[in-house]
Amino acid sequence: MHHCYFNGIITPVHETTMQINDLGFLRGYGMFDYFQTYNGRPFQWDMYWTRYERSAKSLNIPNPIGKDEAYGVVMELLEKSGLSNCAMRFVLTGGYAEDSISVTKPNLLIISEDTHPSPRSEYEEGISVMSHEFVRDIPDVKSTDYKHLIILRDKIKAAGATDVLFHKDGEVSELSRSNLFIFKGDSLITSDKNVLNGITRQTLIDLAKPHFNVEERTVTLDEVLNADEIFTSSTTKRVLPVTKIDEHVIGDGKMGDKSRFLLNLIDDMIANW
Amino acid sequence: MHHCYFNGIITPVHETTMQINDLGFLRGYGMFDYFQTYNGRPFQWDMYWTRYERSAKSLNIPNPIGKDEAYGVVMELLEKSGLSNCAMRFVLTGGYAEDSISVTKPNLLIISEDTHPSPRSEYEEGISVMSHEFVRDIPDVKSTDYKHLIILRDKIKAAGATDVLFHKDGEVSELSRSNLFIFKGDSLITSDKNVLNGITRQTLIDLAKPHFNVEERTVTLDEVLNADEIFTSSTTKRVLPVTKIDEHVIGDGKMGDKSRFLLNLIDDMIANW
Repeated sequence: MHHCYFNGIITPVHETTMQINDLGFLRGYGMFDYFQTYNGRPFQWDMYWTRYERSAKSLNIPNPIGKDEAYGVVMELLEKSGLSNCAMRFVLTGGYAEDSISVTKPNLLIISEDTHPSPRSEYEEGISVMSHEFVRDIPDVKSTDYKHLIILRDKIKAAGATDVLFHKDGEVSELSRSNLFIFKGDSLITSDKNVLNGITRQTLIDLAKPHFNVEERTVTLDEVLNADEIFTSSTTKRVLPVTKIDEHVIGDGKMGDKSRFLLNLIDDMIANW
Repeated sequence: MHHCYFNGIITPVHETTMQINDLGFLRGYGMFDYFQTYNGRPFQWDMYWTRYERSAKSLNIPNPIGKDEAYGVVMELLEKSGLSNCAMRFVLTGGYAEDSISVTKPNLLIISEDTHPSPRSEYEEGISVMSHEFVRDIPDVKSTDYKHLIILRDKIKAAGATDVLFHKDGEVSELSRSNLFIFKGDSLITSDKNVLNGITRQTLIDLAKPHFNVEERTVTLDEVLNADEIFTSSTTKRVLPVTKIDEHVIGDGKMGDKSRFLLNLIDDMIANW
């Protein structure tokens, strides 16, 4: 059964409640982080922790927990879940505000969750995405602001797509909750502007460097539409092929060999974590 | 004692809790509205209700309550508060999400709160604001996204200011939670771009039209700095003078006569509501 840590106390998730005057709830003043455990250990813990601390600092929310204590909480939640692989979500907000606006003491929630792996078929056929002109606010910080994705849910569904590709002024940034990579010839290219600092993105860059010419730079929508292969990366998706953007089919509409090669590399890393 | 309505049930505010998987909390997927009651009746109820419905529609959140029922809830909360004038906050979110992302049934909260009138001295001396280059995301919708204001809280304080004036590319929009008006000669001018559709803003425009040349149009930062008088308008502030922007003192640094005239007009309207 999933449990959560809320300001120092661990209780079952479905029994945990919060007051209604939290600033994350009332004012969108919150951030989160999210990772998975593999073989009973948090994957890339050092990198996730660094990002969590940096997001908190960017949003000017004092982080109330140290790295070692947080690790202990994660391991306890993992044990209580009874799972060997699960997901962990940190949510840090400005805390309860008597007057609905002033920050006092932050609220920190750490939750264990089921993982939500993409269906196997998507690793064969790839996913379709709908392009949408937009740049996220403070994109390098994992703020809790995902309202644009949720507002667009009906449009995405109507387009037969599973996610949205954000672009602006001819440049692409990322999908709603994951980074974007393209293969063109021997180059693996990913945007370095207006993107979330993805841990899986960085892990894949490190894994790919001995094998490909890796470029972190501005990527145009035109380049993406003419790529040999495209995939999206996240904690949950690892390397998930994107084979259709609006009406454009990418490559032969199946997962490409180079993407498959990278997926195997990270899956080996995970298996030996 | 303040009470709140949460999905059909009315309980004391401090006894009311919510689950931790609300999409407003986890994903910033929420909106609100806010008004005051005067003489035992919600001020400009029809206008606030229209805005509430429009915000819900813009964010694609199904509104779970009808106008008459909502009015009944407001009157019940008002009665339970024991106050004749109090504030009411509507908060509507995407609801609880088992998987932390999918919308199911929205959560609607209606809370009675104490009012937070600005100190009397601010109606004499005016307030100082700090200019900041920024445009709110979906500015015409009362989304719960106020993180930029809260991130800036230390900077605003260090600048000796009480609020922030948003501008971009030389054009001003609004303060963090209120609209901006300037007087220049016999003209009353307010921005019509990237601003919240303020009910007090509209009420003041209607009250001012018989007396001034009212212009709703793009307003430059330069015009603001050279205005005769400046004030900001909101439910809470009504007509509150702004007498300093960064290092620039406006007019003679006191509330101006025309602003005072408008404040008297709306206060008369409120007294007779």
